[in-house]
Amino acid sequence: MTKTIRIDLGDRSYDVQIGPGLRKQAGSFLQVAGHVSSVAVISDSNVSSLYGQDVLHALSAAGYPASLLTFPAGENHKTLATCGDLYDRLFSLQPAMDRSSVIVALGGGVTGDMAGFVAATFLRGIRFVQVPTSLLADVDASAGGKTGIDHPAGKNLIGAFHQPAGVLVDVDTLKTLPAEELRSGLAECVKHAVIRDADLLDYIESRASDLLACEEGSLSELIARNVAIKAAVVSQDEREAGLRAILNYGHTFGHAIEAAAGFGNITHGQAVALGMVAANSVAVARDWLDAADADRVEAVLVQLGLETRRAGLDAIDLHRRMLHDKKTRDGKIKFLLPTRLGEVRIVDDLSEAEIYAGIGYLQQG
Amino acid sequence: MTKTIRIDLGDRSYDVQIGPGLRKQAGSFLQVAGHVSSVAVISDSNVSSLYGQDVLHALSAAGYPASLLTFPAGENHKTLATCGDLYDRLFSLQPAMDRSSVIVALGGGVTGDMAGFVAATFLRGIRFVQVPTSLLADVDASAGGKTGIDHPAGKNLIGAFHQPAGVLVDVDTLKTLPAEELRSGLAECVKHAVIRDADLLDYIESRASDLLACEEGSLSELIARNVAIKAAVVSQDEREAGLRAILNYGHTFGHAIEAAAGFGNITHGQAVALGMVAANSVAVARDWLDAADADRVEAVLVQLGLETRRAGLDAIDLHRRMLHDKKTRDGKIKFLLPTRLGEVRIVDDLSEAEIYAGIGYLQQG
Repeated sequence: MTKTIRIDLGDRSYDVQIGPGLRKQAGSFLQVAGHVSSVAVISDSNVSSLYGQDVLHALSAAGYPASLLTFPAGENHKTLATCGDLYDRLFSLQPAMDRSSVIVALGGGVTGDMAGFVAATFLRGIRFVQVPTSLLADVDASAGGKTGIDHPAGKNLIGAFHQPAGVLVDVDTLKTLPAEELRSGLAECVKHAVIRDADLLDYIESRASDLLACEEGSLSELIARNVAIKAAVVSQDEREAGLRAILNYGHTFGHAIEAAAGFGNITHGQAVALGMVAANSVAVARDWLDAADADRVEAVLVQLGLETRRAGLDAIDLHRRMLHDKKTRDGKIKFLLPTRLGEVRIVDDLSEAEIYAGIGYLQQG
Repeated sequence: MTKTIRIDLGDRSYDVQIGPGLRKQAGSFLQVAGHVSSVAVISDSNVSSLYGQDVLHALSAAGYPASLLTFPAGENHKTLATCGDLYDRLFSLQPAMDRSSVIVALGGGVTGDMAGFVAATFLRGIRFVQVPTSLLADVDASAGGKTGIDHPAGKNLIGAFHQPAGVLVDVDTLKTLPAEELRSGLAECVKHAVIRDADLLDYIESRASDLLACEEGSLSELIARNVAIKAAVVSQDEREAGLRAILNYGHTFGHAIEAAAGFGNITHGQAVALGMVAANSVAVARDWLDAADADRVEAVLVQLGLETRRAGLDAIDLHRRMLHDKKTRDGKIKFLLPTRLGEVRIVDDLSEAEIYAGIGYLQQG
């Protein structure tokens, strides 16, 4: 059964469809998109070999001239150089890509971000469709219109806001996802629960083992609820001027931990899980959050197989990294602290002592 | 005396200011833009040595940390590689560029297009200000929000729509403009007259010698009238879905002639002048345009020192190039034909015979 969530952004609105086997319906999905002259599917070397042909066949069967462009898998290929190579190949396709062409991003967050950026800039912007294949991309990256690539100075520093024309979440593709990537996505689901929807935390708690076993019905429901939260936030603040910042809960500590570990040595969701635990400990110390709620969030993370404590963190190094975060202005580091389950507050007044205490909390136990 | 034209685009509206010496007021111009943490001025090697220090001093005097980034002059440097180099240098500036920073594009169309694209994609888009230094950029490129770079497959094929925060037209900078570049800009002014404002043609006719002599008052008035036309068109059709296409009058034949000559061997405006003459001849043959009006447009172009006939054009090659134009869809080439002075109609039904006759007209006399 397919669930549909509408992302409401005026004339840039679109649907997120969620269900099993949807990659094989890419052709019929495009048929509601108006005139499409040709389609280029962009995918990394891992996902391309698993699902590239399915999507290509679905598009061809619906009558679209379709090509598959593959780039080497890995965050280290999310670069301007890879984009340059993709532009070259897009411009050499036959029939020629034009403004009625569509790019399909088939893969995880790296693919969605980069293929979305290529779509945002190809002929000053053509339509693109997300077909995410990781839970993290399903619930977080694929909807919302943030596209981009990395620069040696940091992640996602070059990019554009460019909303997809639609998102097709095929829950079946999660069966081939490595377990640690599944857990990484589940951490972002816990994030959504804490910032906006305490009931979602109940759901995750009660279905944890089904979710870890990739039970399709539970996953579809989980994804739909998370996309609905993301949709509500993005609809109110498309360009991250205010409210959308709440999606960064756990990310200030988390990004620093992720960067310090070296990208690829820790999953994004695992780093965010640690970041949430650190932020919660600061919120508890401020008497903003009940210790019991903080413990409950941590227990859910443990239940999902995520690490919530970590030895050997270098607090001075982490603090320096936070100061250089692209959201830090005039030396003021932004944090999201929960005030209760389902609600967070943005602050930039954490003392150094609080920041160090948050990191110290992760090293205990 | 400074003239101000408002470009009305809702929350993306901005002013174009036109007058002598305005480059030296870049600092005060920014003071109305809200919080600006730092400024990077991007300019090519020619313009940078003429006016870079003036702008830098104006910004510093107003209290902004400001840096000047120079790239090698020439359309052949309007590439992804140059953008990559600019990103690298932007990310290494001290104080670090952030989302409150501003890019100033100081130069002609190449600089405005490329620096605008860098601004559109740096940290997913920061503000930029155009300080155009060529007549073509003053009247055509600097307002409207089209940014982009070239690809071996064609000009401006990679880009974004990103409106500037303001445009500062310093008429004094036209004094250092090569004569053929001044004429190139004047050709675009004739284009604006034919598509929207027959009175403007009177003005150009009556002031041709003043304009060619760079008389400041006449140039300021000319630029203001042209920006007003561009503003009216862009306000109604920001993303070139319809009306904005009229700005392509003379450009279908013109782009093909420009590309066939090899970029740099003919100015853009000179190629457009030939394109307008060819389009007019087709319109006259269709009985859409009076022959006397076509002759008058050609006479104004001649008065401005522009070539209106050209021997040795390869019609088969030009036709093939038009078929590959990025605006051509399903093999239908789009042309703008005048129906009277001040009005053009978009068509895609020109027969091959008409296209060849248009090119043939240029080879007569």
